[in-house]
Amino acid sequence: MNRQASLCIRPNMKQALCELAFETSGKGFTNITADLNAWIAKSGIRTGILAVHVKHTSCSLTINENADPRVLDDLAAWMEAVVPQVAHGALDGSDFLRRYRHDDEGPDDMPAHIRSALTSQTLSLSVVDGELLLGIWQAVYLWEHRSRPQCRRVAAHLVGE
Amino acid sequence: MNRQASLCIRPNMKQALCELAFETSGKGFTNITADLNAWIAKSGIRTGILAVHVKHTSCSLTINENADPRVLDDLAAWMEAVVPQVAHGALDGSDFLRRYRHDDEGPDDMPAHIRSALTSQTLSLSVVDGELLLGIWQAVYLWEHRSRPQCRRVAAHLVGE
Amino acid sequence: MNRQASLCIRPNMKQALCELAFETSGKGFTNITADLNAWIAKSGIRTGILAVHVKHTSCSLTINENADPRVLDDLAAWMEAVVPQVAHGALDGSDFLRRYRHDDEGPDDMPAHIRSALTSQTLSLSVVDGELLLGIWQAVYLWEHRSRPQCRRVAAHLVGE
Repeated sequence: MNRQASLCIRPNMKQALCELAFETSGKGFTNITADLNAWIAKSGIRTGILAVHVKHTSCSLTINENADPRVLDDLAAWMEAVVPQVAHGALDGSDFLRRYRHDDEGPDDMPAHIRSALTSQTLSLSVVDGELLLGIWQAVYLWEHRSRPQCRRVAAHLVGE
Repeated sequence: MNRQASLCIRPNMKQALCELAFETSGKGFTNITADLNAWIAKSGIRTGILAVHVKHTSCSLTINENADPRVLDDLAAWMEAVVPQVAHGALDGSDFLRRYRHDDEGPDDMPAHIRSALTSQTLSLSVVDGELLLGIWQAVYLWEHRSRPQCRRVAAHLVGE
Repeated sequence: MNRQASLCIRPNMKQALCELAFETSGKGFTNITADLNAWIAKSGIRTGILAVHVKHTSCSLTINENADPRVLDDLAAWMEAVVPQVAHGALDGSDFLRRYRHDDEGPDDMPAHIRSALTSQTLSLSVVDGELLLGIWQAVYLWEHRSRPQCRRVAAHLVGE
Protein backbone atom coordinates (compact mmCIF):
# COMPACT_ATOMS: atom_id res chain seq x y z
CA MET A 1 0.00 0.00 0.00
CA ASN A 2 2.75 2.40 0.91
CA ARG A 3 4.42 2.21 -2.45
CA GLN A 4 1.15 2.71 -4.30
CA ALA A 5 0.22 5.66 -2.13
CA SER A 6 3.47 7.43 -2.88
CA LEU A 7 3.10 6.77 -6.59
CA CYS A 8 -0.36 8.29 -6.44
CA ILE A 9 0.45 11.38 -4.45
CA ARG A 10 3.70 12.42 -6.06
CA PRO A 11 2.63 12.99 -9.65
CA ASN A 12 -0.22 15.30 -8.81
CA MET A 13 -0.21 16.94 -12.23
CA LYS A 14 -3.17 18.87 -13.50
CA GLN A 15 -3.91 21.57 -16.05
CA ALA A 16 -5.72 24.84 -16.33
CA LEU A 17 -6.75 26.95 -19.34
CA CYS A 18 -8.08 30.43 -19.89
CA GLU A 19 -8.62 32.99 -22.57
CA LEU A 20 -7.74 36.56 -21.62
CA ALA A 21 -9.20 39.49 -23.58
CA PHE A 22 -7.38 42.79 -24.06
CA GLU A 23 -8.68 46.02 -25.57
CA THR A 24 -5.80 47.59 -27.48
CA SER A 25 -5.82 51.26 -28.49
CA GLY A 26 -4.15 50.77 -31.89
CA LYS A 27 -0.46 50.21 -32.56
CA GLY A 28 1.58 49.67 -29.42
CA PHE A 29 2.40 47.37 -26.54
CA THR A 30 0.15 46.05 -23.76
CA ASN A 31 2.05 44.60 -20.82
CA ILE A 32 0.10 41.40 -20.03
CA THR A 33 2.44 40.04 -17.33
CA ALA A 34 0.23 41.00 -14.38
CA ASP A 35 -2.90 39.57 -16.06
CA LEU A 36 -1.13 36.27 -16.69
CA ASN A 37 0.11 36.17 -13.09
CA ALA A 38 -3.33 36.97 -11.68
CA TRP A 39 -4.80 34.04 -13.60
CA ILE A 40 -1.94 31.71 -12.59
CA ALA A 41 -2.58 32.58 -8.92
CA LYS A 42 -6.24 31.60 -9.33
CA SER A 43 -5.42 28.36 -11.19
CA GLY A 44 -4.09 26.65 -8.07
CA ILE A 45 -1.02 25.43 -10.00
CA ARG A 46 2.24 26.60 -8.39
CA THR A 47 4.85 25.01 -10.69
CA GLY A 48 4.50 24.14 -14.36
CA ILE A 49 4.89 24.96 -18.03
CA LEU A 50 2.73 27.69 -19.57
CA ALA A 51 1.85 27.85 -23.27
CA VAL A 52 0.75 31.38 -24.30
CA HIS A 53 -0.78 31.92 -27.73
CA VAL A 54 -2.32 34.94 -29.42
CA LYS A 55 -5.40 34.02 -31.47
CA HIS A 56 -4.87 36.66 -34.19
CA THR A 57 -2.55 37.17 -37.14
CA SER A 58 -2.15 40.96 -37.10
CA CYS A 59 -0.81 41.29 -33.55
CA SER A 60 1.81 39.21 -31.75
CA LEU A 61 3.61 38.37 -28.52
CA THR A 62 7.07 39.44 -27.45
CA ILE A 63 9.16 39.59 -24.30
CA ASN A 64 11.18 42.77 -23.92
CA GLU A 65 12.36 45.42 -21.47
CA ASN A 66 9.92 46.71 -18.85
CA ALA A 67 11.95 49.75 -17.71
CA ASP A 68 12.77 52.57 -20.18
CA PRO A 69 9.71 53.10 -22.45
CA ARG A 70 12.03 54.39 -25.21
CA VAL A 71 13.06 50.75 -25.80
CA LEU A 72 9.53 49.96 -26.98
CA ASP A 73 9.37 53.24 -28.95
CA ASP A 74 12.60 52.41 -30.79
CA LEU A 75 11.46 48.84 -31.38
CA ALA A 76 8.17 50.06 -32.89
CA ALA A 77 9.99 52.70 -34.99
CA TRP A 78 12.35 50.08 -36.45
CA MET A 79 9.38 47.89 -37.36
CA GLU A 80 7.55 50.83 -38.99
CA ALA A 81 10.63 51.61 -41.06
CA VAL A 82 11.54 48.10 -42.17
CA VAL A 83 8.01 46.75 -42.66
CA PRO A 84 6.41 49.92 -44.06
CA GLN A 85 2.83 50.50 -45.13
CA VAL A 86 1.62 50.29 -48.78
CA ALA A 87 4.92 49.14 -50.36
CA HIS A 88 8.41 47.97 -49.37
CA GLY A 89 11.89 48.19 -50.83
CA ALA A 90 14.59 45.51 -51.02
CA LEU A 91 18.11 44.98 -49.71
CA ASP A 92 19.51 43.58 -52.95
CA GLY A 93 21.08 46.83 -54.12
CA SER A 94 18.18 47.71 -56.44
CA ASP A 95 15.59 50.52 -56.30
CA PHE A 96 12.85 47.88 -56.22
CA LEU A 97 9.65 48.98 -54.47
CA ARG A 98 6.86 46.41 -54.24
CA ARG A 99 3.26 47.26 -53.41
CA TYR A 100 1.37 44.82 -51.16
CA ARG A 101 -1.43 43.01 -53.00
CA HIS A 102 -3.47 42.18 -49.90
CA ASP A 103 -4.87 45.67 -49.26
CA ASP A 104 -8.64 45.17 -48.77
CA GLU A 105 -8.40 45.71 -45.02
CA GLY A 106 -6.43 48.96 -45.22
CA PRO A 107 -2.74 49.84 -45.63
CA ASP A 108 -1.88 48.83 -42.03
CA ASP A 109 -3.13 45.24 -42.39
CA MET A 110 -0.50 43.54 -44.56
CA PRO A 111 2.47 45.01 -42.63
CA ALA A 112 0.71 43.76 -39.46
CA HIS A 113 0.79 40.18 -40.79
CA ILE A 114 4.52 40.50 -41.62
CA ARG A 115 5.33 42.03 -38.23
CA SER A 116 3.47 39.18 -36.58
CA ALA A 117 5.55 36.62 -38.52
CA LEU A 118 8.80 38.37 -37.46
CA THR A 119 7.92 38.24 -33.76
CA SER A 120 6.11 35.50 -31.78
CA GLN A 121 2.69 33.95 -32.05
CA THR A 122 3.34 31.58 -29.12
CA LEU A 123 5.55 31.63 -26.00
CA SER A 124 6.58 28.72 -23.80
CA LEU A 125 7.20 29.86 -20.22
CA SER A 126 7.97 28.47 -16.82
CA VAL A 127 5.81 29.01 -13.73
CA VAL A 128 7.55 28.79 -10.34
CA ASP A 129 6.11 29.66 -6.90
CA GLY A 130 2.80 30.53 -8.51
CA GLU A 131 4.10 33.11 -10.96
CA LEU A 132 5.87 33.50 -14.31
CA LEU A 133 9.61 32.99 -14.16
CA LEU A 134 10.95 36.10 -15.88
CA GLY A 135 14.17 38.07 -15.74
CA ILE A 136 14.02 41.21 -13.61
CA TRP A 137 13.84 43.52 -16.68
CA GLN A 138 11.42 41.33 -18.66
CA ALA A 139 7.72 41.77 -19.37
CA VAL A 140 5.40 39.82 -21.67
CA TYR A 141 3.80 42.14 -24.23
CA LEU A 142 0.87 41.84 -26.58
CA TRP A 143 2.05 43.87 -29.58
CA GLU A 144 -0.80 45.42 -31.55
CA HIS A 145 0.16 45.99 -35.20
CA ARG A 146 -3.16 47.41 -36.47
CA SER A 147 -3.79 51.18 -36.40
CA ARG A 148 -7.22 51.09 -34.81
CA PRO A 149 -8.28 49.68 -31.42
CA GLN A 150 -8.98 45.94 -31.36
CA CYS A 151 -10.22 43.33 -28.91
CA ARG A 152 -7.51 40.66 -28.75
CA ARG A 153 -7.68 37.23 -27.17
CA VAL A 154 -4.69 35.46 -25.66
CA ALA A 155 -4.95 31.77 -24.70
CA ALA A 156 -2.99 30.50 -21.71
CA HIS A 157 -2.64 26.81 -20.91
CA LEU A 158 -0.79 25.65 -17.80
CA VAL A 159 0.32 22.08 -17.01
CA GLY A 160 1.82 21.48 -13.58
CA GLU A 161 1.03 20.91 -9.93
CA MET B 1 -9.03 4.96 0.43
CA ASN B 2 -11.37 7.59 -0.90
CA ARG B 3 -8.80 10.36 -0.75
CA GLN B 4 -6.18 8.19 -2.45
CA ALA B 5 -8.59 7.15 -5.16
CA SER B 6 -9.45 10.73 -6.03
CA LEU B 7 -5.78 11.69 -6.07
CA CYS B 8 -5.10 8.78 -8.42
CA ILE B 9 -7.93 9.31 -10.83
CA ARG B 10 -7.76 13.06 -11.26
CA PRO B 11 -4.25 13.52 -12.62
CA ASN B 12 -4.60 11.16 -15.51
CA MET B 13 -1.83 12.83 -17.49
CA LYS B 14 -0.09 11.10 -20.36
CA GLN B 15 1.91 12.01 -23.42
CA ALA B 16 2.09 11.22 -27.11
CA LEU B 17 4.72 11.94 -29.75
CA CYS B 18 4.94 11.75 -33.49
CA GLU B 19 7.00 12.87 -36.41
CA LEU B 20 5.07 14.09 -39.44
CA ALA B 21 6.72 14.20 -42.87
CA PHE B 22 5.83 16.74 -45.54
CA GLU B 23 6.94 16.89 -49.17
CA THR B 24 7.38 20.55 -50.07
CA SER B 25 7.54 21.75 -53.67
CA GLY B 26 10.17 24.45 -53.13
CA LYS B 27 9.64 27.89 -51.61
CA GLY B 28 6.20 28.37 -50.11
CA PHE B 29 3.77 27.47 -47.37
CA THR B 30 2.28 24.10 -46.44
CA ASN B 31 -0.74 24.33 -44.16
CA ILE B 32 -0.11 21.57 -41.60
CA THR B 33 -3.08 22.32 -39.31
CA ALA B 34 -5.23 19.41 -40.50
CA ASP B 35 -2.32 16.95 -40.26
CA LEU B 36 -1.62 18.04 -36.68
CA ASN B 37 -5.32 17.73 -35.80
CA ALA B 38 -5.60 14.28 -37.38
CA TRP B 39 -2.70 13.05 -35.26
CA ILE B 40 -4.10 14.71 -32.08
CA ALA B 41 -7.42 12.91 -32.66
CA LYS B 42 -5.59 9.57 -32.85
CA SER B 43 -3.47 10.29 -29.75
CA GLY B 44 -6.41 9.91 -27.37
CA ILE B 45 -5.43 13.11 -25.56
CA ARG B 46 -8.25 15.68 -25.53
CA THR B 47 -6.71 18.54 -23.54
CA GLY B 48 -3.05 19.46 -23.24
CA ILE B 49 -0.01 21.40 -24.35
CA LEU B 50 1.56 20.68 -27.74
CA ALA B 51 5.20 21.36 -28.60
CA VAL B 52 5.75 21.55 -32.38
CA HIS B 53 9.29 21.63 -33.74
CA VAL B 54 10.71 21.60 -37.25
CA LYS B 55 13.83 19.43 -37.51
CA HIS B 56 15.57 21.52 -40.20
CA THR B 57 17.36 24.87 -40.36
CA SER B 58 16.38 26.06 -43.83
CA CYS B 59 12.60 25.97 -43.34
CA SER B 60 10.51 27.14 -40.41
CA LEU B 61 7.12 27.30 -38.71
CA THR B 62 4.73 30.23 -38.60
CA ILE B 63 1.11 30.92 -37.78
CA ASN B 64 -0.62 33.29 -40.17
CA GLU B 65 -3.82 33.99 -42.07
CA ASN B 66 -5.67 31.08 -43.68
CA ALA B 67 -8.05 33.12 -45.84
CA ASP B 68 -6.69 35.45 -48.58
CA PRO B 69 -3.68 33.70 -50.24
CA ARG B 70 -2.24 37.13 -51.12
CA VAL B 71 -1.26 37.48 -47.43
CA LEU B 72 1.20 34.60 -47.84
CA ASP B 73 2.35 35.95 -51.22
CA ASP B 74 3.10 39.37 -49.73
CA LEU B 75 4.81 37.79 -46.72
CA ALA B 76 7.04 35.71 -49.00
CA ALA B 77 7.77 38.72 -51.23
CA TRP B 78 8.86 40.83 -48.24
CA MET B 79 11.18 38.03 -47.12
CA GLU B 80 12.66 37.68 -50.66
CA ALA B 81 13.34 41.42 -50.75
CA VAL B 82 14.81 41.86 -47.27
CA VAL B 83 16.74 38.59 -47.06
CA PRO B 84 17.88 38.41 -50.70
CA GLN B 85 19.96 35.75 -52.42
CA VAL B 86 23.74 36.03 -53.00
CA ALA B 87 24.33 39.34 -51.14
CA HIS B 88 22.47 41.82 -48.91
CA GLY B 89 22.60 45.55 -48.28
CA ALA B 90 22.41 47.44 -44.99
CA LEU B 91 20.13 49.95 -43.30
CA ASP B 92 22.90 52.16 -41.94
CA GLY B 93 22.75 54.74 -44.72
CA SER B 94 25.68 53.23 -46.66
CA ASP B 95 25.83 51.50 -50.05
CA PHE B 96 27.26 48.43 -48.33
CA LEU B 97 26.52 45.14 -50.11
CA ARG B 98 27.80 41.97 -48.44
CA ARG B 99 28.08 38.62 -50.19
CA TYR B 100 27.20 35.50 -48.17
CA ARG B 101 30.23 33.31 -47.48
CA HIS B 102 28.27 30.10 -46.89
CA ASP B 103 27.42 29.38 -50.54
CA ASP B 104 28.36 25.71 -51.09
CA GLU B 105 24.73 24.59 -51.09
CA GLY B 106 23.53 27.16 -53.63
CA PRO B 107 22.45 30.82 -53.46
CA ASP B 108 19.10 29.97 -51.82
CA ASP B 109 20.62 28.18 -48.82
CA MET B 110 22.07 30.99 -46.71
CA PRO B 111 18.98 33.23 -47.01
CA ALA B 112 16.96 30.15 -45.96
CA HIS B 113 18.91 29.94 -42.68
CA ILE B 114 18.34 33.66 -42.00
CA ARG B 115 14.62 33.43 -42.85
CA SER B 116 14.36 30.48 -40.47
CA ALA B 117 15.98 32.53 -37.66
CA LEU B 118 13.53 35.41 -38.25
CA THR B 119 10.47 33.17 -37.96
CA SER B 120 9.88 30.17 -35.63
CA GLN B 121 11.63 26.85 -35.18
CA THR B 122 9.24 25.79 -32.40
CA LEU B 123 5.63 26.56 -31.44
CA SER B 124 3.88 26.00 -28.13
CA LEU B 125 0.17 25.41 -28.60
CA SER B 126 -2.92 24.46 -26.67
CA VAL B 127 -5.12 21.46 -27.43
CA VAL B 128 -8.77 21.67 -26.33
CA ASP B 129 -11.62 19.24 -27.15
CA GLY B 130 -9.20 17.09 -29.13
CA GLU B 131 -7.95 19.79 -31.49
CA LEU B 132 -5.59 22.75 -31.75
CA LEU B 133 -6.90 25.91 -30.16
CA LEU B 134 -6.46 28.47 -32.96
CA GLY B 135 -8.10 31.74 -33.88
CA ILE B 136 -10.67 31.50 -36.65
CA TRP B 137 -8.30 33.04 -39.26
CA GLN B 138 -5.19 31.15 -38.12
CA ALA B 139 -3.38 28.21 -39.67
CA VAL B 140 -0.07 26.58 -38.76
CA TYR B 141 2.32 26.67 -41.72
CA LEU B 142 5.53 24.89 -42.57
CA TRP B 143 7.43 27.56 -44.51
CA GLU B 144 9.87 26.12 -47.04
CA HIS B 145 12.75 28.52 -47.73
CA ARG B 146 14.73 26.35 -50.19
CA SER B 147 14.07 26.61 -53.93
CA ARG B 148 13.81 22.91 -54.65
CA PRO B 149 11.38 20.34 -53.21
CA GLN B 150 12.39 18.84 -49.87
CA CYS B 151 11.12 16.21 -47.46
CA ARG B 152 10.63 17.98 -44.11
CA ARG B 153 9.98 16.44 -40.72
CA VAL B 154 7.96 18.13 -37.99
CA ALA B 155 7.97 16.70 -34.45
CA ALA B 156 4.82 17.02 -32.33
CA HIS B 157 4.79 16.18 -28.61
CA LEU B 158 1.57 16.40 -26.61
CA VAL B 159 1.25 16.28 -22.81
CA GLY B 160 -2.27 16.17 -21.40
CA GLU B 161 -5.20 13.92 -20.65
CA MET C 1 -7.55 -2.41 -6.36
CA ASN C 2 -6.22 -3.49 -9.71
CA ARG C 3 -7.89 -0.71 -11.58
CA GLN C 4 -6.73 1.90 -9.13
CA ALA C 5 -3.19 0.62 -9.19
CA SER C 6 -2.98 0.86 -12.96
CA LEU C 7 -4.40 4.37 -12.89
CA CYS C 8 -1.78 5.34 -10.34
CA ILE C 9 1.22 3.83 -12.00
CA ARG C 10 0.61 4.84 -15.59
CA PRO C 11 0.60 8.62 -15.33
CA ASN C 12 3.92 8.90 -13.58
CA MET C 13 4.45 12.49 -14.66
CA LYS C 14 6.85 14.77 -12.87
CA GLN C 15 8.76 17.95 -13.53
CA ALA C 16 12.25 19.35 -13.17
CA LEU C 17 13.61 22.89 -13.41
CA CYS C 18 17.00 24.48 -13.61
CA GLU C 19 18.71 27.72 -14.42
CA LEU C 20 21.88 27.41 -16.49
CA ALA C 21 24.44 30.25 -16.52
CA PHE C 22 26.63 31.04 -19.52
CA GLU C 23 29.54 33.48 -19.77
CA THR C 24 29.42 35.02 -23.23
CA SER C 25 32.40 36.82 -24.75
CA GLY C 26 30.41 39.57 -26.47
CA LYS C 27 28.47 39.28 -29.72
CA GLY C 28 28.19 35.74 -30.99
CA PHE C 29 26.68 32.31 -30.52
CA THR C 30 27.07 29.86 -27.63
CA ASN C 31 25.98 26.32 -28.47
CA ILE C 32 24.01 25.28 -25.34
CA THR C 33 22.76 21.91 -26.65
CA ALA C 34 25.22 19.80 -24.64
CA ASP C 35 24.52 21.76 -21.44
CA LEU C 36 20.79 21.23 -21.84
CA ASN C 37 21.31 17.52 -22.52
CA ALA C 38 23.60 17.11 -19.50
CA TRP C 39 20.94 18.60 -17.25
CA ILE C 40 18.16 16.51 -18.85
CA ALA C 41 20.21 13.35 -18.18
CA LYS C 42 20.46 14.31 -14.49
CA SER C 43 16.75 15.17 -14.20
CA GLY C 44 15.66 11.53 -14.40
CA ILE C 45 12.98 12.44 -16.95
CA ARG C 46 13.36 10.47 -20.19
CA THR C 47 10.41 11.74 -22.23
CA GLY C 48 8.67 15.09 -22.02
CA ILE C 49 8.23 18.68 -23.12
CA LEU C 50 10.95 21.22 -22.39
CA ALA C 51 10.36 24.97 -22.08
CA VAL C 52 13.58 26.95 -22.57
CA HIS C 53 13.60 30.68 -21.78
CA VAL C 54 16.34 33.29 -21.74
CA LYS C 55 15.97 35.70 -18.82
CA HIS C 56 17.38 38.76 -20.62
CA THR C 57 16.19 41.18 -23.31
CA SER C 58 19.46 41.90 -25.12
CA CYS C 59 20.31 38.33 -26.07
CA SER C 60 18.08 35.57 -27.45
CA LEU C 61 17.65 31.92 -28.38
CA THR C 62 17.73 30.39 -31.83
CA ILE C 63 18.07 26.99 -33.43
CA ASN C 64 20.33 26.89 -36.46
CA GLU C 65 23.00 24.90 -38.28
CA ASN C 66 25.73 23.25 -36.23
CA ALA C 67 28.08 22.40 -39.13
CA ASP C 68 29.63 25.20 -41.26
CA PRO C 69 30.49 28.14 -38.93
CA ARG C 70 30.05 30.54 -41.88
CA VAL C 71 26.27 30.06 -41.50
CA LEU C 72 26.43 31.77 -38.10
CA ASP C 73 28.84 34.41 -39.45
CA ASP C 74 26.49 35.28 -42.30
CA LEU C 75 23.49 35.28 -39.96
CA ALA C 76 25.27 37.71 -37.60
CA ALA C 77 26.41 39.90 -40.52
CA TRP C 78 22.86 40.19 -41.86
CA MET C 79 21.62 41.20 -38.40
CA GLU C 80 24.42 43.81 -38.04
CA ALA C 81 23.47 45.28 -41.42
CA VAL C 82 19.70 45.36 -41.01
CA VAL C 83 19.56 46.29 -37.31
CA PRO C 84 22.54 48.66 -37.24
CA GLN C 85 23.99 50.60 -34.32
CA VAL C 86 23.15 54.27 -33.56
CA ALA C 87 20.53 54.80 -36.32
CA HIS C 88 18.59 52.84 -38.94
CA GLY C 89 17.16 53.54 -42.37
CA ALA C 90 13.80 52.52 -43.83
CA LEU C 91 12.48 50.38 -46.69
CA ASP C 92 9.82 52.85 -47.81
CA GLY C 93 11.88 54.34 -50.64
CA SER C 94 12.98 57.38 -48.62
CA ASP C 95 16.42 58.44 -47.31
CA PHE C 96 15.02 58.38 -43.77
CA LEU C 97 17.60 57.67 -41.06
CA ARG C 98 16.33 57.47 -37.48
CA ARG C 99 18.56 57.64 -34.42
CA TYR C 100 17.68 55.37 -31.49
CA ARG C 101 16.50 57.32 -28.43
CA HIS C 102 17.33 54.63 -25.89
CA ASP C 103 21.11 55.12 -25.90
CA ASP C 104 22.09 55.35 -22.20
CA GLU C 105 23.58 51.84 -22.19
CA GLY C 106 25.75 52.32 -25.27
CA PRO C 107 25.16 52.11 -29.04
CA ASP C 108 24.99 48.30 -29.00
CA ASP C 109 22.09 48.09 -26.51
CA MET C 110 19.05 49.21 -28.51
CA PRO C 111 19.90 47.05 -31.57
CA ALA C 112 20.30 44.16 -29.11
CA HIS C 113 16.69 44.59 -27.95
CA ILE C 114 15.46 44.65 -31.57
CA ARG C 115 17.54 41.60 -32.52
CA SER C 116 16.09 39.79 -29.52
CA ALA C 117 12.54 40.61 -30.66
CA LEU C 118 13.29 39.29 -34.18
CA THR C 119 14.55 35.93 -32.90
CA SER C 120 13.27 33.83 -29.94
CA GLN C 121 12.99 34.48 -26.24
CA THR C 122 11.48 31.04 -25.60
CA LEU C 123 11.67 27.61 -27.25
CA SER C 124 9.36 24.64 -26.82
CA LEU C 125 11.19 21.37 -27.40
CA SER C 126 10.67 17.65 -27.16
CA VAL C 127 12.78 15.30 -25.03
CA VAL C 128 12.96 11.65 -26.15
CA ASP C 129 15.20 8.88 -24.76
CA GLY C 130 16.66 11.33 -22.25
CA GLU C 131 17.81 13.95 -24.72
CA LEU C 132 16.61 16.84 -26.89
CA LEU C 133 14.92 15.76 -30.10
CA LEU C 134 16.76 17.80 -32.73
CA GLY C 135 17.46 17.43 -36.41
CA ILE C 136 20.93 16.14 -37.26
CA TRP C 137 22.16 19.62 -38.33
CA GLN C 138 20.47 21.54 -35.51
CA ALA C 139 21.92 23.09 -32.38
CA VAL C 140 20.31 25.35 -29.77
CA TYR C 141 22.19 28.64 -29.51
CA LEU C 142 22.24 31.43 -26.99
CA TRP C 143 22.80 34.49 -29.21
CA GLU C 144 24.58 37.33 -27.43
CA HIS C 145 23.72 40.71 -28.97
CA ARG C 146 25.75 42.97 -26.63
CA SER C 147 29.37 43.87 -27.51
CA ARG C 148 30.92 43.08 -24.14
CA PRO C 149 30.99 39.77 -22.23
CA GLN C 150 27.91 39.05 -20.13
CA CYS C 151 26.70 36.39 -17.71
CA ARG C 152 23.43 35.06 -19.13
CA ARG C 153 20.88 32.82 -17.45
CA VAL C 154 18.70 30.34 -19.33
CA ALA C 155 15.76 28.66 -17.56
CA ALA C 156 14.82 25.10 -18.52
CA HIS C 157 11.62 23.46 -17.30
CA LEU C 158 10.84 19.85 -18.18
CA VAL C 159 7.50 18.06 -17.71
CA GLY C 160 7.44 14.34 -18.46
CA GLU C 161 8.22 10.92 -17.07
